[in-house]
Amino acid sequence: MSKNIVIVGAVAAGPKAACRLKRLRPDWNVTMLDQDSLISYGGCGIPYYVCGDVSDEKELRSTSFHMVRDETFFEQAKGVRVLTRTRALAIDRKNKTVRVENLNTGEAGELPYDKLLLATGAQPVRLPIPGIDLDGVFAIADLHKAIAIKERIAQGKVSRAVVVGGGAIGIEMAEAFTDLWGVETTLVEYMPQLLPRIVDWHFAAMLKKHLEEKSVRIHTGESAVEILGDDQGKVTGVRTGQRTLEADLVIMAVGVRPRSDLAREAGLSVTPWGGIKVNHRMQTTDPDIYAAGDCIATTHLVTGKDAFAPFGSLANREGRIAADNMAGGASHFPGVVGSYVMKAFERCIASTGISYETALAEGFAADYSLTAPADRAHFFPGEAIVVYQMVFDRNTRRVLGLQGFGMMNDSISARIDTAAGLIARGATIEDFMTVEMAYSPPFSSAIDSINAAAYVADNLCAGLLRKVGLDRFFAWMEDFGREPDWVALDIRHLQEATPYAAKFGERWLAIPYNEMRQRHGEIPEDKTMIILCDAGTRSYEVQVMLDAVGKRNSLVLSGGFNVIRRVGADWLL
Amino acid sequence: MSKNIVIVGAVAAGPKAACRLKRLRPDWNVTMLDQDSLISYGGCGIPYYVCGDVSDEKELRSTSFHMVRDETFFEQAKGVRVLTRTRALAIDRKNKTVRVENLNTGEAGELPYDKLLLATGAQPVRLPIPGIDLDGVFAIADLHKAIAIKERIAQGKVSRAVVVGGGAIGIEMAEAFTDLWGVETTLVEYMPQLLPRIVDWHFAAMLKKHLEEKSVRIHTGESAVEILGDDQGKVTGVRTGQRTLEADLVIMAVGVRPRSDLAREAGLSVTPWGGIKVNHRMQTTDPDIYAAGDCIATTHLVTGKDAFAPFGSLANREGRIAADNMAGGASHFPGVVGSYVMKAFERCIASTGISYETALAEGFAADYSLTAPADRAHFFPGEAIVVYQMVFDRNTRRVLGLQGFGMMNDSISARIDTAAGLIARGATIEDFMTVEMAYSPPFSSAIDSINAAAYVADNLCAGLLRKVGLDRFFAWMEDFGREPDWVALDIRHLQEATPYAAKFGERWLAIPYNEMRQRHGEIPEDKTMIILCDAGTRSYEVQVMLDAVGKRNSLVLSGGFNVIRRVGADWLL
Repeated sequence: MSKNIVIVGAVAAGPKAACRLKRLRPDWNVTMLDQDSLISYGGCGIPYYVCGDVSDEKELRSTSFHMVRDETFFEQAKGVRVLTRTRALAIDRKNKTVRVENLNTGEAGELPYDKLLLATGAQPVRLPIPGIDLDGVFAIADLHKAIAIKERIAQGKVSRAVVVGGGAIGIEMAEAFTDLWGVETTLVEYMPQLLPRIVDWHFAAMLKKHLEEKSVRIHTGESAVEILGDDQGKVTGVRTGQRTLEADLVIMAVGVRPRSDLAREAGLSVTPWGGIKVNHRMQTTDPDIYAAGDCIATTHLVTGKDAFAPFGSLANREGRIAADNMAGGASHFPGVVGSYVMKAFERCIASTGISYETALAEGFAADYSLTAPADRAHFFPGEAIVVYQMVFDRNTRRVLGLQGFGMMNDSISARIDTAAGLIARGATIEDFMTVEMAYSPPFSSAIDSINAAAYVADNLCAGLLRKVGLDRFFAWMEDFGREPDWVALDIRHLQEATPYAAKFGERWLAIPYNEMRQRHGEIPEDKTMIILCDAGTRSYEVQVMLDAVGKRNSLVLSGGFNVIRRVGADWLL
Repeated sequence: MSKNIVIVGAVAAGPKAACRLKRLRPDWNVTMLDQDSLISYGGCGIPYYVCGDVSDEKELRSTSFHMVRDETFFEQAKGVRVLTRTRALAIDRKNKTVRVENLNTGEAGELPYDKLLLATGAQPVRLPIPGIDLDGVFAIADLHKAIAIKERIAQGKVSRAVVVGGGAIGIEMAEAFTDLWGVETTLVEYMPQLLPRIVDWHFAAMLKKHLEEKSVRIHTGESAVEILGDDQGKVTGVRTGQRTLEADLVIMAVGVRPRSDLAREAGLSVTPWGGIKVNHRMQTTDPDIYAAGDCIATTHLVTGKDAFAPFGSLANREGRIAADNMAGGASHFPGVVGSYVMKAFERCIASTGISYETALAEGFAADYSLTAPADRAHFFPGEAIVVYQMVFDRNTRRVLGLQGFGMMNDSISARIDTAAGLIARGATIEDFMTVEMAYSPPFSSAIDSINAAAYVADNLCAGLLRKVGLDRFFAWMEDFGREPDWVALDIRHLQEATPYAAKFGERWLAIPYNEMRQRHGEIPEDKTMIILCDAGTRSYEVQVMLDAVGKRNSLVLSGGFNVIRRVGADWLL
């Protein structure tokens, strides 16, 4: 028997569910509504549209076979009725209807449903500061905003921009402005680092350094307190706690939150932060109402807690699963590990699972391995250093997360995606030691980066490797008084190490790696030796060797100069 | 108490085990011997050395920090004693000694061991045909051969080469000759396809077409029956069953087999094909003798059977695990899924698990999904089509393998590596539907290729999708009489479909995808409609729609023209 399906929201989760439902139940009536006139677009593509990589906004809402996904397309090709510029005002759960309003005509109506899907998405957080409504202040709320921004830039109206917010959207927009348009761009982030809660500080620092090299000005730990404007109501700048930044354009990218008023007002369960609660079948607390996409709370598979995971990829998946269940099937969405990847100019940064900082906060016996190997066979042309951090629990040996930073190619994705599949299944260090990465010199090393990261984790757990944190080392380099008994033991080639030994005197001892077995007598026993090399692997070997001769007074700086150089430091020669 | 460790073989597994052992047991005596003078080289890098990408053979045996791994390096940096040009002649298991011979001096000796590791590697198979020992006939047995080959080419002595064997080494060598040196190269493979037993025929066909476009001549299903030479004993050509090919250089790359005579003669268990049997701790049938690397038989995690997996990556891993156990630990090597990746000019081909053909032979209820999506967001510049085949068991829904073919970048590795991790754990289609690939338009699609492949598999299992094999379709296109009731239903844009309809008349019906809901009345009911589009996704939607109107007389050509064009066909317009 035919049923009436109503879907609120026509981007990502909504369209995916609508089309899947029509395939599973061709005789059902599927109606999808959206308050916007532009629907079914790839929101994650907006920065690439603004920068010009994607020339026409229509490409963001076209299929791979170049048909625009508008109302006619959904009607003709998919058999789905679409009502645009139509807002869902309220859900009458008793009578199973949705009250709607046509935003063009003001006309109101009721849509009866047998099953209802809420795919209402997320909306940008509005900072409660003065000037937020000035002309020229934009949040990336929808495609219209993107079109307006690009128009302004293309018309030469923008020479200086300020981006408030150092998450993915803020960084991608800063790149878009700087890279193609040459707009002088400053990014302000109130947390002490970029990508807060996503990557650990040193990964954020490597990203920041690269962005700065590409002419993006960045102020972290700095809050926007007021947006400034002129008499005509046009934006002129941003005042932060520390300074005033001039701007013709301001992007507010301080995060998004679930759009869940409709659900809350209908009495459905919603988390304190606004995520619609759903079970693994995407059902809300009303079994005839489903929810999918950026408006829901899902489960984090590492912490077991509610999670907010607003990704277009997950929205599509959740939409498909909701459709399966609405059609009478039994599909299951297990939750998320929080996989994340971002292009930043010529670099890529990515992560999955949780960061070290988060793992500590969550009460894990958290530790991490920090490695900096080549991204493919070190003798293969074009190879480049990549930095990985594997976060694990020392008690259970469970891997909790992986972060990667390197060149802009798919090499990091390969490791992050592999890790995501394993972490979702509770994999341990052993599982990562043996995961079988396809090997050939143009693609990987004989000991793949992900295996190598697990080996280091294994060595840490076994007590074979004792490391020192990068933060402590950097602090010491700023002020030797902090660790009066430390001496750097630089085991790189002499031409690399000698200038440092010359500069830092008795704080810096240079003995090459391959001479250590002969020269370990020169190592002082009353000092703590901080062993340094390029990647950290030689340092580990030297530590093991020194331990064997009874000199256990050393710590390894994981990642070595490969990481130090990418994070940057004043004292680097 | 110190122990004596003897390791036979000093490439990959041997050196890895030796160094790991010295770190775990610094006071043990570790002696590693090899019959060669050049040791610890990256054998997989040989084709890149021959083609010139790697300029000096020393790079293949250097560390990432540019130290050559020779006897002195192992002695000084690692504390491992190395005996080169030293052959192990026999093992006396009772007295626990290895009888050795110095190949330079002829001097013989005995090395006592507490634990012994056999890392004897593999050796090229010798075809039993005349002329195999002529000057200019090479197998890629070691680095000396590589140096000799490159010398001949660099001296301009080679204008025509024949490669016998269409496996990875043969193809990589053919690329090396053609790409940099412009040598007219012909590859002969006696099986009907390249990469036999690794990928299915259509993946081999896509690879073959690309190699041919790059000027490599290829004859599959053709055996070399004689190597021809002149009066001076120099090679002049290769005679096959079908033709005579002129050549100044012949590469024999017809596979490798475990070098296990030493083990067999010592009474250790060896498979019929020569793999030394080991348990998950890498112990042979003598608990004091371990084996690792290309000389062993390991377990295939999909078939559960003995497997031969001669990869440098696995050799390193097995070496580490052997060392852990020799040192008294308890490390475990679970077995392999057979991950494989190869560069071929501007393309990449990769696989993990087993092929469809193998799955059928192994008795699985095998089926496959064939997909041809974009490798990243279809609106992102530089995106390219990639072809995947996911092999699964219809009864258990277990995923048995994944193959990929696309551009030369790391995109395919990302999916193959992710799949390898899951397949090793017995993952099902559901696991692949939900594996959380990091999403951002420069890296992936909102519905990632690997998720999409699983969706198609899911639809196949559910009976929502009925497909026709590419082989049957190609056969029909050659001879319509084979399937007299078939009609192609081309649902692409009219400008693409109309020329085919014009050429093939009543055998080819063109109705665009988006008009199908209005025009399905035009579909004949007494024919079998073979639905065609670019990637196969629209075809699936049309099939579902036709089913819904009672017309169940259709089959979908999975992968569509994206695959057809890559395999190639005479009838393509």
